Formats: sequence, structure tokens, C-alpha cells
Amino acid sequence: MAKVAIMGYGTVGSGVYDIIKTNSEKLCVNANGEPVELKYILDIRDFDDHPEKELFTKDVNDIINDNEVSVVAEVMGGLHPAYEFTKSLLESGKSVVTSNKELVATYGTELLEIAREKNVNYFFEASVGGGIPIIRPMHQCLTANNIEKIAGILNGTTNYILNQMIKNGKTFETALKDAQQKGFAERNPAADIEGHDACRKIAILASLASGKLVDYNDIDTEGITNITLDDVKYAAAMDAVVKLIGYAEFGKDGKIYSIVSPMVIKNDSPLSGVDGVFNAIMVTGDCVGDVMFYGKGAGKLPTASAVVADIVDAVKHSERSKKIFWEKPQGNIMADKNSKKFSYFVRTTDTAENVQKIFSNCSFVDNIVDNESAFVTEPLSQSEVIEKLSMLSDVVTNIRVLN
Amino acid sequence: MAKVAIMGYGTVGSGVYDIIKTNSEKLCVNANGEPVELKYILDIRDFDDHPEKELFTKDVNDIINDNEVSVVAEVMGGLHPAYEFTKSLLESGKSVVTSNKELVATYGTELLEIAREKNVNYFFEASVGGGIPIIRPMHQCLTANNIEKIAGILNGTTNYILNQMIKNGKTFETALKDAQQKGFAERNPAADIEGHDACRKIAILASLASGKLVDYNDIDTEGITNITLDDVKYAAAMDAVVKLIGYAEFGKDGKIYSIVSPMVIKNDSPLSGVDGVFNAIMVTGDCVGDVMFYGKGAGKLPTASAVVADIVDAVKHSERSKKIFWEKPQGNIMADKNSKKFSYFVRTTDTAENVQKIFSNCSFVDNIVDNESAFVTEPLSQSEVIEKLSMLSDVVTNIRVLN
Repeated sequence: MAKVAIMGYGTVGSGVYDIIKTNSEKLCVNANGEPVELKYILDIRDFDDHPEKELFTKDVNDIINDNEVSVVAEVMGGLHPAYEFTKSLLESGKSVVTSNKELVATYGTELLEIAREKNVNYFFEASVGGGIPIIRPMHQCLTANNIEKIAGILNGTTNYILNQMIKNGKTFETALKDAQQKGFAERNPAADIEGHDACRKIAILASLASGKLVDYNDIDTEGITNITLDDVKYAAAMDAVVKLIGYAEFGKDGKIYSIVSPMVIKNDSPLSGVDGVFNAIMVTGDCVGDVMFYGKGAGKLPTASAVVADIVDAVKHSERSKKIFWEKPQGNIMADKNSKKFSYFVRTTDTAENVQKIFSNCSFVDNIVDNESAFVTEPLSQSEVIEKLSMLSDVVTNIRVLN
Repeated sequence: MAKVAIMGYGTVGSGVYDIIKTNSEKLCVNANGEPVELKYILDIRDFDDHPEKELFTKDVNDIINDNEVSVVAEVMGGLHPAYEFTKSLLESGKSVVTSNKELVATYGTELLEIAREKNVNYFFEASVGGGIPIIRPMHQCLTANNIEKIAGILNGTTNYILNQMIKNGKTFETALKDAQQKGFAERNPAADIEGHDACRKIAILASLASGKLVDYNDIDTEGITNITLDDVKYAAAMDAVVKLIGYAEFGKDGKIYSIVSPMVIKNDSPLSGVDGVFNAIMVTGDCVGDVMFYGKGAGKLPTASAVVADIVDAVKHSERSKKIFWEKPQGNIMADKNSKKFSYFVRTTDTAENVQKIFSNCSFVDNIVDNESAFVTEPLSQSEVIEKLSMLSDVVTNIRVLN
């Protein structure tokens, strides 16, 4: 009998509760025959009307000091006290599973190290891509591959907004309001639309793929607040869409290039068709080529489904630590920002003649807005494009093109 | 030190060899620090020029009787002697991993049972979807879900052919010849174009999802040989494509409906954008909703990548059997063929008036071919559609629509 606890009875936490209650027989079978029983739910709020109100506690020590509890789901979110609680639990010899991307991206290295020392597990499948299986497949199924590249639509909110612009011709502002009304965006949407959420997720994936901590502070991050309806229309005319992409490239020299940025994606890429609140992660391995994982990147039951799968895996591996792991690198592992070249989609009020003088190998796009030139550059490094753009009289837009 | 053997040095077998040789350090790390060393390659042919010709043997007993060998990759294909070899190896206490979908679909139940008895593993990640992680994610990551539905593009050859028709306006015959010239189709392409390959794969996925053997002989299977260029053009006009789909639906009553058939797929489905020799499998779980797995469904290194991942997993679990498993069902688990309703895309030389009399709730499609009526029916069971079609004077085409 494996006794488990849930920390945080919000959207995801109550989803975890529901799945454990309704699918208990199936979970038992999949946990090698061991019944999974819920013993505690930690939350600072009162749940006196809950049918199992006796499970609730406000004191994490009830869980930490209970030797019967072997696996804890941390679905409370935020850095503190999630960090302190997780650390204490791992140190007391319990496995912890989490959906908390901020915690994994910030303190994952240390928490994974403690788990390894204590021979328990710290699993975080739900922290990236919600219900989409990605952490375990990348680690286990692609184990024969050197990962060369990851490109992901990692944030459902921004994808929903861009989709509303693309499909329904809404402006960014209207699409954002619509997303807020539907509950897809927070009242303060900065973490999503500024790209910070996607940044933490690509940092986790890049750390997992390389085995070395990729610090999200080292990843240049640009959100979608500057994307206009005209940009989206130009993309459509180019048989493409604009998506917010979390990107990481792994050099043979061990250096990692990573960025979060809106990108123009041709419609022949499977990433282009990922609509609404869905997420998708394209992983390129040296043997397998491109594989893509697609599904709901957020939401109560999808995310809880991944948390519960981690619980079952932790129960199965109760006596040994799985080697899902990364460590702090010696020295700087981030590639020079100019080592990677992108083509750029550029709009300017400058003349086509001037454009051609500055960008010799560009291809023009038919105008949608009067009195401007629109074109796609040859692949350029960041400093090259900055220099060339500064020579134009006025730049309306410049967006990377995913290659 | 884990000693492994490869049976069959064809395309996939030589890929497994290449990966083990070039990525040995990485494999060792991922196999919890245990070095993976190749000890035998079984093949009836001579490889005297091979740099490691001393590894080759023509006698399977060299492997069966060698207690040092703990994991064997069966990549020889075909039913015999692959079945006999695999059985003997499992019985002698070795784990076997395979890319052989025919063997898994035909003798999987028995081989999985022997593996369980002997406390070893029989893994088959590469048997469905080539390099795409699908078996393990379905089993582990979706463990909290009741699987409701699987719809997959499971055969790269037919997808390439249909793609050539859709994108390049080739006829079926020309596209097939092109696929044969490119090495994507066999000289005898029946197993692919008649749907038998896809049928074995959906049988494996349905067995895994339900835990009960789904016999591929019980799955109605229709290939793509009747699909014409006009059908494909009609689909495009309907903002859709035609794909060969392996389909399985799991009822709450434990009954399974499964079919392999060309289907019309709307362009808003992520399956519609799966081009060329790529495969994709959409799995619907009661918690997670739709998740899709996409990648190369065949080819030397993609398939070998999945075989090697299985080898590593078998090395890690050398002392215990993982519960990837299904058993022979008590009684019939297949749903009545009329329990499932599809809409159908129909072309007939009969008049629109007659069509409307017979199919009251149909929606007509603009004509592409003169003197015919084209329409999509309301959802109908198989017997309902057969009856109604028999009332038309002449039926050119009828294709299921994926819903």
C-alpha cells in the first residue's frame, strides 16, 4: 500500500484528487499491483464541506513526519514555500512529483541532487506541456539519440491569442481580452504574453536534454506583445503562421543556444497546425530525426493526468532513484548569441531600393500595407541583423523565421 | 556489463549496430551506468568484410546458451524462425526487444506471458511508429487515463502515396511507382497498400490500451487501392485530405471497435498535416484529451533508435519484468460492427434528387466531375450505409469521414 499526499488543492490538486478517486483500480494495476491511497491534502484554506475533509491539513509537518507517506504531489505553484516543503520532503526520504515549472526551473538542480542522494525521485512531467508526455519520452525513448534541437509551442495562452488573430482576424488586444474572459489568460497576463512561462519550460527541456542546468536567466526572451494583425496577415500570405517558440539547439561542442521569440513558421511544418490552447514540442534527434509531441498544455485534468502518472512511476520505483537528472555546469555552456543565424521577416517604410542595397539576398513579399516594403532576409546572426536594420529609415516589424 | 546480441543484420539491425558503436558512452550513462556491449550478431549471410566479423554467428544456440547475454534485439522480421528464436531466448531467461510488428501482433500474447513467467522483458517500441515514442508513453505517461480512442497514420508508404496524389496531383499508380523507385514501397506493395501493415499496428496499440489481445484477423481492413485522384481533389475542395487510418475505440462496456480504412480528415485535425513517410498517432484519454505522437514511422536509424531505447530499458530492468502486458480475453471483446457510426463521403452518378430522397440529412459538395453528385452523409452504421448505397443507381466512391 502506497500512501500519498497532495500539497495544494487548487485546479490541478483537485484534478489529482479526482483521478486518484475515480481510477484507483487502474492505478493499482499500473503501480505493479500496489494500491495507491491518498492520506493527506495540504492547503491553507478550509474545506469543511469536502466529502473527505478529514484528509485536509494545514501543517506540512503532518506529511513530513508520517513515515507511511512515500510520494507527495506538489501542485501548489510558486517558489515559496513550495521549495522549502519539497526540500524537507525529499530529505525525509519521500519522492516528490510536481507540476511547478517555476520551481523546477529555479531550484531543480538542487532538488534533483537531494533526491539522488536520498535514493528517491523528483519527477516533473506536468511542468512542461501539461498532459503531454514529453519528459519521460525524451529521457527514455530517445535515449539512443543525441538531441540536436528542440522547438516548442509551450504556452497555450499565447497560442490561443495568436490563433484568434490568425483565424478570426482579431487584434492582439481583443484576442487577449477574449482569452481572459474564457479563463485562458490571467488578469495579469505578463508571465504568458511576455514569454516568461515558455522560457522556464524550454529551460527545463534544454537542461534535461543536455544533462546540464540551463539557467532561464540566460535565455533571451521576447513575447508576442509587438505582433500585430498585419504581421499575421503577411505570414498568411507567405503560407505561414506566427507562433511563440521556445527554441534550443545543442552544438557538438557542448554549447547550447536557446531563445524564446515569436517566429514565422511555414505551413508545411507540423508545428504550424497547432491551434488554440494546444501545445506541441518538436524534438530533433541524430538518429530518429524529427518527433513531435502534441496535446493540451494546461487545464485541470490534462495536467493532473501527468502528475498522477508521475505518482504511479514513483510508487513503482520506490526503492531506487531513476536517473532523470541534470547538474550545474562547469563554466558557461551557453553558446554565443551570434553563433545562430535566423532568417528574419522584416517590414519597413523604407524603399525597396534601399532594402536591396542593405539586404542583398532578401526575397520580397507582396505588400499588404501601403507604402512599406516587406521581405525575408537570408540567415543572419543577431548582430548582423541589428546592424542592417539600423541602416533602414524605419522598421515596423522584424520576426525570426523558424528553420 | 550488459552483453547484448542482434538477430538479423538487415537495415534495422545494422542501424542498431551503428548506434551501439557510436553512442556507447551515452547508452552506458542512460543504462544506470552499465556499459552495453555487443557480443553477437546472428545472420545467415556472410559478412567477412565487416570490421567486427568475429561477432557474427549463424547459430542461434550460441546466443541462447551464452549466460553472459542478457538482452537480444530481434530485428530479423517475419514470423519464422523469429518466433521460435524469441521463445527460446525468453525461456532461457533473456530479455528480447523487437521491431517485428507481425510477430508481436501474432504471437505477442504468448511471448509476453513467457517473459512475465521468466521475470524478463519483451519490449516492442519499434514495432509501431518506427522511432516515434508511443508504446512506453501510452503505457506509462497516460497511465492515469482510460484510453477512449486511437486514430493513427501508421503506414508511411501509403501516406507517401496519398501525399503525392494530394500535393502533386499524381494518380495512385504513378505515385506507387514513384514510391517504389524511392525505396519507400516494396516491389510487392500489397502489405502496405492493402492496409495489412497498418492493421497489425493498430491491433498492437489496441491490445496495449485495453490489456486484452485484439486479434488483427478481427479488424476489417481496407487499403487505399480504390482511392482516385478525383477523390483527393474532392477532399481538398472540402478543406480536407484522405489518409489511411488505423482506428480503435474503447467502449465503457469493455468492447472494442477497430477498423483500418481510408478516411477523409478535415484540415483542422493535426493528423491532416502529417506528410510524406511520417506517421502520427492520436490517442484520446478520458483525462488528458487528445495527445498526438509524430515522427518517422520507418527507416534504418529512426527504427533502430527505438530498438536501442528498448535495449537500454531492458538492461535497466534486468532483474524484473515491467508490466507492459496484455492477455487473451475471455469471450469476444470486439464490438458489433454496427455499433459505430461514421459519416461517409459519397460520389454517385445518380441524381441529386434521388440522393436527397435516400439520404435525408446529407450535405452536398460542389461537383468536380461532371454528371455526378457528391455529398457527405449524416453518421451511419455500416449496415445503414450499405443499405442506402444499394438504393443509388451507381456509387463511384464511399469513404469514411474521421470524426
